[in-house]
Amino acid sequence: MPYVNIKITREGASAEQKATLIAGVTALLRDTLGKNPATTVVVIDEVDTDNWGIGGEAVTTLRARAAAQA
Amino acid sequence: MPYVNIKITREGASAEQKATLIAGVTALLRDTLGKNPATTVVVIDEVDTDNWGIGGEAVTTLRARAAAQA
Amino acid sequence: MPYVNIKITREGASAEQKATLIAGVTALLRDTLGKNPATTVVVIDEVDTDNWGIGGEAVTTLRARAAAQA
Amino acid sequence: MPYVNIKITREGASAEQKATLIAGVTALLRDTLGKNPATTVVVIDEVDTDNWGIGGEAVTTLRARAAAQA
Amino acid sequence: MPYVNIKITREGASAEQKATLIAGVTALLRDTLGKNPATTVVVIDEVDTDNWGIGGEAVTTLRARAAAQA
Amino acid sequence: MPYVNIKITREGASAEQKATLIAGVTALLRDTLGKNPATTVVVIDEVDTDNWGIGGEAVTTLRARAAAQA
Repeated sequence: MPYVNIKITREGASAEQKATLIAGVTALLRDTLGKNPATTVVVIDEVDTDNWGIGGEAVTTLRARAAAQA
Repeated sequence: MPYVNIKITREGASAEQKATLIAGVTALLRDTLGKNPATTVVVIDEVDTDNWGIGGEAVTTLRARAAAQA
Repeated sequence: MPYVNIKITREGASAEQKATLIAGVTALLRDTLGKNPATTVVVIDEVDTDNWGIGGEAVTTLRARAAAQA
Repeated sequence: MPYVNIKITREGASAEQKATLIAGVTALLRDTLGKNPATTVVVIDEVDTDNWGIGGEAVTTLRARAAAQA
Repeated sequence: MPYVNIKITREGASAEQKATLIAGVTALLRDTLGKNPATTVVVIDEVDTDNWGIGGEAVTTLRARAAAQA
Repeated sequence: MPYVNIKITREGASAEQKATLIAGVTALLRDTLGKNPATTVVVIDEVDTDNWGIGGEAVTTLRARAAAQA
C-alpha cells in the first residue's frame, strides 16, 4: 500500500530506466518492510531544468556553467 | 483552506470531468468538515503511463498486456 | 489507481469524518472517471495551525484574531 | 537540506521569474533557519488552468468569467 | 539531485528499516540514472492508519476486519 | 492562488520562524509573479531526522557523526 513519488530533472530518462526504478523501489519496500507489491504505487515526475533549483540557482544555469567550463 | 492533490494517469480525462472532480471534492470537504469552498484548492496531476507504476510495473506495460489478452 | 492527498489543518477531525472523506473521494473518482476503488489510495495529512499559512499569516494567528473579535 | 515545492498555474512565468523564486526562497531559508543553500532544493510545478480548482471551479472558468466581465 | 518521498502507514517501521530504505533508493537512483547520492534527498512520511484509505475504507477498518477474520 | 510546501527537518523551528517563512514566501510570490497573498497557501512539514535521508544516510546518523567529530 505504499506510495512513492520520485522527482528527477527531465534529462532523457528512458521508459526502460523508469521501469527499472518502478521495479526496484517496489522490491525494496517488499524486502525491507514486507509491503505488498500489488498495491505499491510509484509515480515519477520529470521536472524541467528551469523549474528545479539547488544552491539557489536553476539547474539550467548550473548545466550551462558546467558546459562552459568543460 | 484545504489543499487536495489528485493524481491520475494521463488517459484522456476531459475538462468537464476534471471540473466535476474539482466541484465534487470541494463539496465533500464543505459537507464533511465545514471547510470554506472559497479557499479550497484542488490540483489535478495527469501522469504519463510510463511514469506510473503499480505492482512493480509501469501502467504502459499493464495496458499493453491487457490489450494483448483482450 | 488514483492517488489523492488531502491536507487540512489539525483541528479535531474525527476518525468518522476522515472515513467519510476517504469513501467520498473514492466514489467520486469511480463515478467521474471509472477509476477502480480497489486501487484508489487516499492519504489525509493533518497540519498544525502554526505550520499552515494563508494570506501571509499562520492559521494560529488568524484563529486568535477571529476569537478576539468574536 | 530543505525541500520546497511551489505550485502555480501555468500562465507564462518566465525562466527569469522562476530563477528569482528559486533564489528568493533559498535565501529565505538561509536567513530564517540557517539552512545551507547548497543542499536546498526547490521544485516549481506549473499546472494547467483546467487542472487547478479554487472555490469549486477550474481556474479556466474563473478566468473566462473575469474576461467576460472586464 | 533527485527527491524521493515514500509514504507508508505508521505501523512500527524501525529506524534501521528506514535507513535501509534511504540507502536502497539512493543506490537505485545512482545505479539506474547515474544520480549523485550526495544530493539525493529521501523523505519518509509515516501516516496514521485512520488517515490512509484504500478501496474506499480507512486502513484502521481493514486491519480490524482482518484481525476479526483471523 | 499558489500552493507552497516547505519540508524541513524537525529540529526546533519556532512558531515565529515559521511565521517568517510563511510571510516571506507569500511576499516573494506577490513581488515576483503578482500572485494574490489572500489565496496563497503555505504548508510547512517538519520531518523527523530518522525519516530524512541525504547522501544515502538518515540525518540522525549524519548529526551523530558530526557531533562525535566536534
